[in-house]
Amino acid sequence: MITLSSDFGWPYPAAMRGVIAAESDARMVDITHAFPRGNVHTTAFWLREVLPWFPPAVHLVVVDPGVGTERDVLAIEAGEHVLVGPDNGVLIPVARHLDAGFEAYRLTDMDAASQTFHGRDVFAPLAARVHDASIEALDTLEPASDIVEYRFPKPTIEGTVATGEVLVVDGFGNVITNIPGGFGEFGMWVTVNGERVPVVRTYAAVDRGEPIVTVGSHGNLELAVHDGRGADAFGVSPGSSVRISKE
Amino acid sequence: MITLSSDFGWPYPAAMRGVIAAESDARMVDITHAFPRGNVHTTAFWLREVLPWFPPAVHLVVVDPGVGTERDVLAIEAGEHVLVGPDNGVLIPVARHLDAGFEAYRLTDMDAASQTFHGRDVFAPLAARVHDASIEALDTLEPASDIVEYRFPKPTIEGTVATGEVLVVDGFGNVITNIPGGFGEFGMWVTVNGERVPVVRTYAAVDRGEPIVTVGSHGNLELAVHDGRGADAFGVSPGSSVRISKE
Amino acid sequence: MITLSSDFGWPYPAAMRGVIAAESDARMVDITHAFPRGNVHTTAFWLREVLPWFPPAVHLVVVDPGVGTERDVLAIEAGEHVLVGPDNGVLIPVARHLDAGFEAYRLTDMDAASQTFHGRDVFAPLAARVHDASIEALDTLEPASDIVEYRFPKPTIEGTVATGEVLVVDGFGNVITNIPGGFGEFGMWVTVNGERVPVVRTYAAVDRGEPIVTVGSHGNLELAVHDGRGADAFGVSPGSSVRISKE
Repeated sequence: MITLSSDFGWPYPAAMRGVIAAESDARMVDITHAFPRGNVHTTAFWLREVLPWFPPAVHLVVVDPGVGTERDVLAIEAGEHVLVGPDNGVLIPVARHLDAGFEAYRLTDMDAASQTFHGRDVFAPLAARVHDASIEALDTLEPASDIVEYRFPKPTIEGTVATGEVLVVDGFGNVITNIPGGFGEFGMWVTVNGERVPVVRTYAAVDRGEPIVTVGSHGNLELAVHDGRGADAFGVSPGSSVRISKE
Repeated sequence: MITLSSDFGWPYPAAMRGVIAAESDARMVDITHAFPRGNVHTTAFWLREVLPWFPPAVHLVVVDPGVGTERDVLAIEAGEHVLVGPDNGVLIPVARHLDAGFEAYRLTDMDAASQTFHGRDVFAPLAARVHDASIEALDTLEPASDIVEYRFPKPTIEGTVATGEVLVVDGFGNVITNIPGGFGEFGMWVTVNGERVPVVRTYAAVDRGEPIVTVGSHGNLELAVHDGRGADAFGVSPGSSVRISKE
Repeated sequence: MITLSSDFGWPYPAAMRGVIAAESDARMVDITHAFPRGNVHTTAFWLREVLPWFPPAVHLVVVDPGVGTERDVLAIEAGEHVLVGPDNGVLIPVARHLDAGFEAYRLTDMDAASQTFHGRDVFAPLAARVHDASIEALDTLEPASDIVEYRFPKPTIEGTVATGEVLVVDGFGNVITNIPGGFGEFGMWVTVNGERVPVVRTYAAVDRGEPIVTVGSHGNLELAVHDGRGADAFGVSPGSSVRISKE
């Protein structure tokens, strides 16, 4: 199985599907091609949330604002998964989550028909070859020791106060923070950036339109509104600071 | 085969695909993940239009504004199909269309890792298990007798006048009413909410920009504009009343 | 393998997937269903760019503003590929690219349940039948000699000046012209509609926000901005004339 992730929208993902289908019988499954353009941070977050649910697979990721530059092309072995994508940090959080001792390899052979569409000409063929052979079998890969790191910002927790930031806002407007879910307890009230809200288990625990703090499916504290958009209600966006204090 | 429908946009459907792929070899086919957020009515309409075209399959549907509440999780056996989704009515019109004597089962075991993402933690695993085993083989399902009903509003037809309403507007702006196609006859003119328009077989039967009434692929009367948006021309939206009188 | 292309958005492509799955075991791969509504020109361009990357397949294309009119339904044999779609020119550029001597066939049997959804009732079943049998095996197809032609406009090149036009603008805002990449040389400066810009190999060869001319993955000259939208910077859209002069 090869999964495909990109910020391409349409129609470019179809060219990658064609290249893979021409080189491999691998089953293909789309993650999404709607990642925000060139946004390594948001893509890295969602890959870490989503890819670990898959059975062992090759995961092709093309969110690559540095296309055509000297940045390396990586294949990362992490547990039973292989991640293929640019050396810009986007693969790191999910790699570390899959296996803290992941092994990175870089492509040594970068002849490509196009300098503007490495997704089709470099990454997709590499994903197909890694799928059908293995990293060890490819002599165009060599161990890479000095790759671009990526870590999500850490919150600080002092007694009853947690200070963190917004990692991403999902399509429902739910605000995903970097504050671990364990900081809150269901049933308590907290103050979020000055606003007093309950910590509840589900969106529907309050009336429609009411703000809440909950623990999202990712395990972090999430600012939300029942049947509404938490990002609007709390006036925050990715990178905004979030201060939560317990009563 | 397992089909997937939701209002999730991205990237959450990918987590469901991962869970299913990890539990089953079933072929996966997306219906859409662009159903309007929390809109049971519109989703129920399109499921009824689309799912019956598939060969026997398990159809996973997650349009679930009550996630995390006490609402039941259903598996419905309808003909050779199985529908898996929340007990909010969304599955009922297509179930009835597939088999008026459909049988509903509810999940008795609701331990879930997350209270906010039942699509990944409850519905997707259930769809995979129903696919690989069968409803009868699962001891976590029991017959459900008192499930949430859903019926589309009925039109009234008195002589030459039909009074109904707009069920949905599609992406082309075509207005799908609940008035059966048999009420009109190709070639006649009718008055729709005060406007005189012809009843024709195809959009292209009139000049570009001209309004028509036609019989849509769903079998109901549809208000449309050749190469334009019927919803704008007729000034209606889902729920609007529609009065059509023959000359 | 059957690929699917349309301007349907959602949910209509799912009905086509259902019809194909009910008639054939063919693997299905989406190209996109986001082609601009009724836009034969843009669809024809992208099909020519994308479909040749696939292994031999049946390619179903439904961008069909003339649905329900007398326009023919075509199956075109081009190399080892078959293209199925309306006779409005949309299939021609990719057919010619795959095989200059392509053979076109028209459907003689046009009984269809619906006059408004030929994608589901005519094109999808035909794609499934062509996939499982072959064009020659279907007695509902006959050779078609007089089909609708489509050619992209040609640029004129006189010495150091090329005059062409914008073919399409992609989702990144990159402006794809009809001027062949060979007209420029990496490293030179050119004047594009009065603005002096460098011809470079990659977007990242200049500072963010700076305009460039490059050779896109399609082989034509492309007007772009590093990390920005070329269409906005150059003030052009599909059909705009483009004059490029070398220094």
